Amino acid sequence: MLKLFSADDHIIEPAHLWQDRVPAKFREDAPRVIQEDGREYWVYAGTRGETMGLSAVVGRPRDQVNLDPVRFSDMRAGCYDPAERAKDLLSDGIYASVLFPSLPRFSGTLFLTFDDKELSDVCVRAYNDFIIDEWCPAGPPGLYVPTIICQLWDPEKAAQEIHRCADLGARAISFPENSVPLGLPSYWEPYWDPIWRACEERDIVMCLHIGTSSWRPEPTPDAPEVLTFSLLHVGSIMSSVNLMMSPVCRKFPGLKFVFAEGGIGWIPNALERADRFWVRHRVYNNTDDILPSEIFRRNMYLCMLEEPTCLRYRDDIGVDRIMWECDYPHNDTTWPESQESAEMTFREAGCSQAEIDAITHGNAERVFNWKMASADALAPR
Amino acid sequence: MLKLFSADDHIIEPAHLWQDRVPAKFREDAPRVIQEDGREYWVYAGTRGETMGLSAVVGRPRDQVNLDPVRFSDMRAGCYDPAERAKDLLSDGIYASVLFPSLPRFSGTLFLTFDDKELSDVCVRAYNDFIIDEWCPAGPPGLYVPTIICQLWDPEKAAQEIHRCADLGARAISFPENSVPLGLPSYWEPYWDPIWRACEERDIVMCLHIGTSSWRPEPTPDAPEVLTFSLLHVGSIMSSVNLMMSPVCRKFPGLKFVFAEGGIGWIPNALERADRFWVRHRVYNNTDDILPSEIFRRNMYLCMLEEPTCLRYRDDIGVDRIMWECDYPHNDTTWPESQESAEMTFREAGCSQAEIDAITHGNAERVFNWKMASADALAPR
Repeated sequence: MLKLFSADDHIIEPAHLWQDRVPAKFREDAPRVIQEDGREYWVYAGTRGETMGLSAVVGRPRDQVNLDPVRFSDMRAGCYDPAERAKDLLSDGIYASVLFPSLPRFSGTLFLTFDDKELSDVCVRAYNDFIIDEWCPAGPPGLYVPTIICQLWDPEKAAQEIHRCADLGARAISFPENSVPLGLPSYWEPYWDPIWRACEERDIVMCLHIGTSSWRPEPTPDAPEVLTFSLLHVGSIMSSVNLMMSPVCRKFPGLKFVFAEGGIGWIPNALERADRFWVRHRVYNNTDDILPSEIFRRNMYLCMLEEPTCLRYRDDIGVDRIMWECDYPHNDTTWPESQESAEMTFREAGCSQAEIDAITHGNAERVFNWKMASADALAPR
Repeated sequence: MLKLFSADDHIIEPAHLWQDRVPAKFREDAPRVIQEDGREYWVYAGTRGETMGLSAVVGRPRDQVNLDPVRFSDMRAGCYDPAERAKDLLSDGIYASVLFPSLPRFSGTLFLTFDDKELSDVCVRAYNDFIIDEWCPAGPPGLYVPTIICQLWDPEKAAQEIHRCADLGARAISFPENSVPLGLPSYWEPYWDPIWRACEERDIVMCLHIGTSSWRPEPTPDAPEVLTFSLLHVGSIMSSVNLMMSPVCRKFPGLKFVFAEGGIGWIPNALERADRFWVRHRVYNNTDDILPSEIFRRNMYLCMLEEPTCLRYRDDIGVDRIMWECDYPHNDTTWPESQESAEMTFREAGCSQAEIDAITHGNAERVFNWKMASADALAPR
C-alpha cells in the first residue's frame, strides 16, 4: 500500500462556514446558502452563485458526471464534511491533504471583488479560522495541512494574516498563479514584498493552482470544457517561467512555490527554452547569471495526477520536484482508486521504490515540513 | 556533413517588392521604403513602420544584437537578397528552406488590417508572385520551398489564390496559429472550409508559426522580450490542441499542419493531458472516438532548433513528426553554425543515423513532397 500525500484537494465549504463566524453586522452580506425551487444557491454581497457539478462529483459513476449545479444532499458527504472526508482519504491510502477553497475560488479571489473590503477581510479571516479550528482538527493529526488564503488587495494586512495563521499552525497559502489578469500589480512589482517576506520568514508554502489568475485558455469562443481543461496547464507554464525570470525568488530565495494540477511533463521543455533565451537575449535584456532552471530547482515544485509517459522524464524534471495529488472531489480525481492509479503510473514509468517514496510523500513532507497522519489512523478522532 | 532542410526561415522583403508588382493606382498605398533622417521606414496604407533589429541580426556578433531598427545596408545581404541567401544556406549545409514573410507579418495578417481590401488583395498576390517568380528561382532548384500567404478576410478568394499558386508550384502556406485574436471566426467555424479544402486538395502544407495569432504571452505588463519569447511556444500548444479537438482534421483528414518555432518538448505532455480529458469529459462534451493524439500523429508536425534534452523524448513525440529549422535571419538562428548546432543536438540526444536523416530532411521532404537542392549546388545558378 502506497502512503500518499495529496498536494491538491478541494473543500466544499459547508453552508454555515461564514454565518457562524462573521460579526452580526456582516451576516446578511457574508456568504450564505438559500433554498429556492428545489435548488441551493450561495448568496453574498448582493450576488447569487451556484455549486457547479464538476466541483463535487467524487464517487459518482463516470456516465453521470455533468455540469449541472448540485445541492449538498446530492454530494458525497466527504465533499463538505471533514470527518467523512477523512474516512474517504484514509481508506484510499491518503494520509495528508493540502486544501484549496471552492466558493472563494481556489485562491480566495472572490473576496477581491467585493466593494466592501471590510466584509472581504472578515470573510478571509473566517475562512482561515474555519480551516484551522474546525476542518483540520476533524481529521486525525497530520491528515489536513492547514492552507489559508489572504487579503490580496492589501499585502500588509495579508502579511499580518499570514503571521497570525502561522502562529496557529498554518503551513501553506493558496495564491493566484498570476495577479495581472485579476487587475492587481504584477509579481515583478514590490507591491507583493510583504507577502513574499512573510511566507519566506514563516516557511509558508505558496500553492499556485491552475485557473487562479482568472485567465482561461480559450482558443475558440465558448470552448468546450474539454478543450479549456486540457489547456489549463498553460497557466502553470506562464506562471512558473514568469516567476523564474522575475525578481521574486532572487529577492526572497527561501520561497517555495508548488504548482497544483498543472502536471509535470512540460517543464523540461520550458526550462530548456527559458535557459537558452536567458543567455541569447542577455545583452539587451540585462539578464543575470542565475538561469531560470536554477530558480526552478531551488524554489519550485510540480504536482502530478496520472502522467505515466511524462514521469519517465523525471531525471530531467528532478525527482525531488514532483508531488502526487488526488484532486478530491473534482472530476479529475483519482479517488477511490488512488492506489491503483498511482501504482499504474509508477509501474508504467518504471520508478524505483526510493523514487516512489519521494513522489508519493517524501517530497511533500519535506517541502511542507509536515508529518503525515500515521498509517493506522483509519478512523477520524 | 548533415543535409539540412529548414522548415522555418524568414525573408526580409526587398524595397521594390510591391512597387514593382502592384498596378499603378495602388503604388502610393502599397508598401514602399522611404529614407528620413538617416533611417529607413516602410510606409503603407497611410501607416509607417520600421524594421526591428531582431528580425535581421544574422551574422552579427552576439554582443551587438539589440532591438534597434536597422537599414538594409546594416543587414547581411542574405536577409533580403535571395542569391546571397542561397550562398549562406548552402555553405551551412542547408539545401531546402521554407520561407515566412516579415513585413506582412509571419502569416500575412498585416493585409487583414487594411481598410481597402482591394489594396490588400493586390498586396497578397504581389507577395506570392514575388516568392514564386523572383525569390525562389534565384536559388538552385530545390533550395527555396515556395510558401505563400492568402486573403484571410475572404476564404473563397483565398482558395482561388491557393489554386492559382499551386498551379505555379507553391507547396506551403503560412497561416495564423489562431484566427480568433485576429478578430476572425474560429477554426471551429465552417468559414474556413474553402481554405482547408483547397490545401487538402492541392497538398499545400499549412505552416503555423509562433506569434501569428497576434496573441502574445505577457504575464507581466511590458514583459521583457526574453520572457515573452520564452513563452511563445504556448501559442503552439494552444493552437495544436485546439486543432486536434476541433472538427478541422476530422472533416479534412488529409491536411498537414507544421508548427514552426514552437519546439517539440511539450507535445508528450499535451497529448497525455488532452487524451485523458477527451475520455474523462466524454459524457457531457460528446467527444468522439478519435483521440487528440491520433489527430496529431496523422495531421501534425513540429519543428526544432536546439532541444538536446527534449529530443530524447522522440519516441513519445514520434520521430516522423519532427523537422529541423534554422530560423535564418533571426536572433535565434543556428546560422552559420547549423552543422555544429545540429550535430551537438543529435549527439547529446543519442540519435541513430536513421533518426538524424528523418529529422534533418527526410520528414520534411516527405511532408512538403519536395526534393532538396543537390549537395553539389554550392553556387546559386
